[in-house]
Amino acid sequence: MKKDLLGIADLTPFEISMILDLAESTKSISERTIKKVPTLRGRTVVNLFFEPSTRTRLSFEVAQKRLSADTVNFSVSGSSISKGETLVDTAKNLAAMSPNVIVIRHSVAGYPHRLAKIMDASIVNAGDGFHEHPTQALLDLMTIRERKPKIEGLKVAIVGDIARSRVAGSNILCLTKMGVEVTVMGPSSMLPLHVRRLGVNVAPNLKEAIIGKDVVMLLRIQAERDAAPRFPSPREYNRYFGLKMEHIKYLKSDCIIMHPGPINRGVEIDPEIADGPLSVILDQVANGVAVRMAVLLLLLGGRSIYEISD
Amino acid sequence: MKKDLLGIADLTPFEISMILDLAESTKSISERTIKKVPTLRGRTVVNLFFEPSTRTRLSFEVAQKRLSADTVNFSVSGSSISKGETLVDTAKNLAAMSPNVIVIRHSVAGYPHRLAKIMDASIVNAGDGFHEHPTQALLDLMTIRERKPKIEGLKVAIVGDIARSRVAGSNILCLTKMGVEVTVMGPSSMLPLHVRRLGVNVAPNLKEAIIGKDVVMLLRIQAERDAAPRFPSPREYNRYFGLKMEHIKYLKSDCIIMHPGPINRGVEIDPEIADGPLSVILDQVANGVAVRMAVLLLLLGGRSIYEISD
Amino acid sequence: MKKDLLGIADLTPFEISMILDLAESTKSISERTIKKVPTLRGRTVVNLFFEPSTRTRLSFEVAQKRLSADTVNFSVSGSSISKGETLVDTAKNLAAMSPNVIVIRHSVAGYPHRLAKIMDASIVNAGDGFHEHPTQALLDLMTIRERKPKIEGLKVAIVGDIARSRVAGSNILCLTKMGVEVTVMGPSSMLPLHVRRLGVNVAPNLKEAIIGKDVVMLLRIQAERDAAPRFPSPREYNRYFGLKMEHIKYLKSDCIIMHPGPINRGVEIDPEIADGPLSVILDQVANGVAVRMAVLLLLLGGRSIYEISD
Repeated sequence: MKKDLLGIADLTPFEISMILDLAESTKSISERTIKKVPTLRGRTVVNLFFEPSTRTRLSFEVAQKRLSADTVNFSVSGSSISKGETLVDTAKNLAAMSPNVIVIRHSVAGYPHRLAKIMDASIVNAGDGFHEHPTQALLDLMTIRERKPKIEGLKVAIVGDIARSRVAGSNILCLTKMGVEVTVMGPSSMLPLHVRRLGVNVAPNLKEAIIGKDVVMLLRIQAERDAAPRFPSPREYNRYFGLKMEHIKYLKSDCIIMHPGPINRGVEIDPEIADGPLSVILDQVANGVAVRMAVLLLLLGGRSIYEISD
Repeated sequence: MKKDLLGIADLTPFEISMILDLAESTKSISERTIKKVPTLRGRTVVNLFFEPSTRTRLSFEVAQKRLSADTVNFSVSGSSISKGETLVDTAKNLAAMSPNVIVIRHSVAGYPHRLAKIMDASIVNAGDGFHEHPTQALLDLMTIRERKPKIEGLKVAIVGDIARSRVAGSNILCLTKMGVEVTVMGPSSMLPLHVRRLGVNVAPNLKEAIIGKDVVMLLRIQAERDAAPRFPSPREYNRYFGLKMEHIKYLKSDCIIMHPGPINRGVEIDPEIADGPLSVILDQVANGVAVRMAVLLLLLGGRSIYEISD
Repeated sequence: MKKDLLGIADLTPFEISMILDLAESTKSISERTIKKVPTLRGRTVVNLFFEPSTRTRLSFEVAQKRLSADTVNFSVSGSSISKGETLVDTAKNLAAMSPNVIVIRHSVAGYPHRLAKIMDASIVNAGDGFHEHPTQALLDLMTIRERKPKIEGLKVAIVGDIARSRVAGSNILCLTKMGVEVTVMGPSSMLPLHVRRLGVNVAPNLKEAIIGKDVVMLLRIQAERDAAPRFPSPREYNRYFGLKMEHIKYLKSDCIIMHPGPINRGVEIDPEIADGPLSVILDQVANGVAVRMAVLLLLLGGRSIYEISD
């Protein structure tokens, strides 16, 4: 595998499958009494979060500790980044502590890619601006794979703020690479300008988007990121774009419902559906730890991946 | 033992004694050169603090590391809780990472109990609103037990904001269960409405409260929690409710003085007493680590408790 | 070695050399695949940072984890220190958790020394006010030693805010102890009142300061610490005190350029010099981890230092 995991854009379908195959093994580690293997003992991982995060940071940290890596966290508040240090200097200074992996979340698209060019350590993009969030797309695909025997030819709808969601960005890349037919839908203000160039269909409304699909993936409304919100109100959003009980009749009986979380209940999705039998939302979270373990193992490579049964 | 430690209310006297017996063993671990046993290796503990804390969070984290558990911290700032996620969703998302224990502090009474109902992980209440703080009461009882050969029949005074102190709440429950005679005293605005229903005596003033007692426990004035403080000033509080050198003459010669910390010197207690021979305040802190180790061992159960001698 | 590392003032030249000799060994640990030795397993280290820090906190934490110590962090925000606890109570409460080492950064000069007097744990000063930052001076000397075969008789220039830089403070003490001839230069408002009593020369301008020196050490402008800045503007500072390409001609060909970081590029130093062949700035960072590992090993003493080859 390459040195870094910066985006789904850089991965071949073979590499994507390899990560998910390994994640099936790493998932079993979290199901044991002693949820720990010594594989990454003595490796140093730095979690560098420039944006608030609960689940992603926690998921990475749990993954690292279950692989016995040494984990060091820092977040932007209280860091010298606030003293005006440049990316290059931050990178070089981190490098001088010889970490093996830097997991980074940053509000600027491309920041992880610039870090990767100047560091020997492996960089894992944990979300960069509106750009990519590759481990999310991988855990989403792992969750789909657990329910659908064949990925190629599946039909997936993605609903919400397509333009500014890095989850949508990485998922569209990942799913289309794997031969999935992707349909997107959202407020017109939330669709990218040349959306069809992404190789996706655009549905005119929620009903058309979800009919006959194998997977319906709802995106989180990121009200907190938006100075000038692009939709009138959560209630208004729910009216046109929220998945409600009345839509169940349009869904295939084996359709699965996904959401990257945290859910705005009653906005993107009705609680009855989020908690209902079609929802695989919590499988996504569990698979997040497994996928991140697999990514860390593959990046640090070598014999590591054969030793995880210890 | 039960799945969770939510409050002293749920514990039998037998269970309380069992925890303290085990804590006597775990205390010795912190006195060794290598202050660590491998008992909880590969178990994941999440410390979820929705309120600021130094000593409790630190005490739990030290306890966890001395048992070789994998510890992941998060505090509310910078977490997706601030993105409006519900308790249920927080719980389910944590659960999907398969932690073994969640240690939680929250300003809402009953929050840990609601978490416990929907999670397989063991929940340890590290303080919920004005309600309970069970590990504090256990470490207090352990401290008393180290100085008093027989618990039953002891006389304990608790002085301060009885109504809104979770330390008082858990201690009253714990001590009365163990056959201790408890007397409370504080500003009338700080006494619960039906205080005698708690099975305690109420003293009219500090002198009456402390005379003939085996233990005097002072509560911290929580000025920071109180929008409209219920007493005029720290100086005023000290005048009527602070333990001062002039009170020493009323104390039994083997009386011990306790305080959960952090101390407001010169408010609840005079420095000479806090640092004097009757004070066991620092024993309380040391016993905190021991009690929390014991609680973690018992909750995770199985053979664990027999292996701590390694 | 003594119980604590509070300042270079307390160290003999022999002790300084011993730390650096050991640091040469510990540096190799960070160059291995498995960057970890079990030497400090079961020892508890508390990192107590009352001021924001990235590189120092990170460097200490990496050092601790590579020695297998149990590390607990806390920073002032969210701690009970903000509840008005005194130094003595903080110290005693920490002590009751039986840590082996406390690494402390505080804005008050002498705070670590006061802690050291009342605690059994070893105290490591990670920066106290404008006073000392001993591990910085040690890592600086280690970096010099790697490039210069003989320390005694070297000529070192230190440029910047001499009066209020703890990096300057510790370096002047350290270098003069080792027989180095130190010359300082900076805005007159940034020189200590009786600067020559420190045993250093004072240069009238940057050119005079750097000519013929073996080492030029630039200090960071701490704009954020200064309510009433003592220089007109960064541009003005750069004009008179910044090391620029035009100065290269005055430097000895084997002169090395140092800076404690984070760099204000274009203020204290031109980017071309910071990234150029004379710069050893990143060696300083790497040596920081090594020196801190050595200090921890020596403070915890005993057989430890002979076991690091495992």
